[in-house]
Amino acid sequence: MTTRRIRYCCAVSVGGYIAGPGGEFDWIVMDPEMDFAEMSERFDTYLLGRKTFEAIGGRDESSSAMRTFVFSRTLRQSDYKHVTIVGENWKALVQSLREEPGKDIWLFGGGSLFRSLAAEGFVDTVEVGVIPTILGGGVPLVAEPASRIGLTLEEHRVYEKTGTVGLVYSVNRSDQG
Amino acid sequence: MTTRRIRYCCAVSVGGYIAGPGGEFDWIVMDPEMDFAEMSERFDTYLLGRKTFEAIGGRDESSSAMRTFVFSRTLRQSDYKHVTIVGENWKALVQSLREEPGKDIWLFGGGSLFRSLAAEGFVDTVEVGVIPTILGGGVPLVAEPASRIGLTLEEHRVYEKTGTVGLVYSVNRSDQG
Repeated sequence: MTTRRIRYCCAVSVGGYIAGPGGEFDWIVMDPEMDFAEMSERFDTYLLGRKTFEAIGGRDESSSAMRTFVFSRTLRQSDYKHVTIVGENWKALVQSLREEPGKDIWLFGGGSLFRSLAAEGFVDTVEVGVIPTILGGGVPLVAEPASRIGLTLEEHRVYEKTGTVGLVYSVNRSDQG
Repeated sequence: MTTRRIRYCCAVSVGGYIAGPGGEFDWIVMDPEMDFAEMSERFDTYLLGRKTFEAIGGRDESSSAMRTFVFSRTLRQSDYKHVTIVGENWKALVQSLREEPGKDIWLFGGGSLFRSLAAEGFVDTVEVGVIPTILGGGVPLVAEPASRIGLTLEEHRVYEKTGTVGLVYSVNRSDQG
């Protein structure tokens, strides 16, 4: 059976941070050649860890085009109408999401959620936009400590205006789960 | 006056580590299309931090083609014949090395030495070979905490056989020193 792909897509600094030491996102430049509308159309589901959810505002919002799942042991579903809070049953939920028909699933972050999903073999790709900045500290792409994961480079693209480098890797199956 | 360039060249994992949690280098694949002999010919000087020097063996070796400088507050010059130990006077030494005639200077690492040199405006380029592996922990490209540094992408190259991505950045002058 073909399952939906779970793709970990995010911006990283040269040095591998997805946010600054204080959670800053201001270093992330948006290259005018990146077509976010086109990219978003490939997805219909967001997966977010609790910290990432709160870092981007923690709003109880969803849309007809995208469903949002927030992984948390502390948030309560009764406080949210539009996002789904995923707790103890997260493995079964991710498995069933993958088996549903639909578009790709965007693992929005952060590094802790990636680590948990990758350890179960649930992550298909790691897709980074490397921003030409060194942060000197911050939130790592993958929460430490994590197991080593082999990747295969599938695509690359340079966005000339900002010097952002887009790299798409597939996760080597033998290294997961 | 034109000074010699100091280039921080190293392999990094996807996620930005230059060595594994235990200092491992075994994840670094050597792509057959990388011409290390040709690359080495562009340099005549190595700069290494003490930890990196010890990680690669700590041998008291040098060659007619390359001079080696090891930055350390604890190693003693009297124990070494072929490498130069650089202590308290490191800023003046780096400045004078830059002003000498010669080839480029290879800042071999690690992240602590890079941080110190970058803070003084001594680093001209950051050149990484991104290896398609996630380590899940290790030695960061830049020791934390460090100041933010803006970079400009100058060159890129994909090594198809291994999926290694070579990225050459110049350091934005306004962000250093």
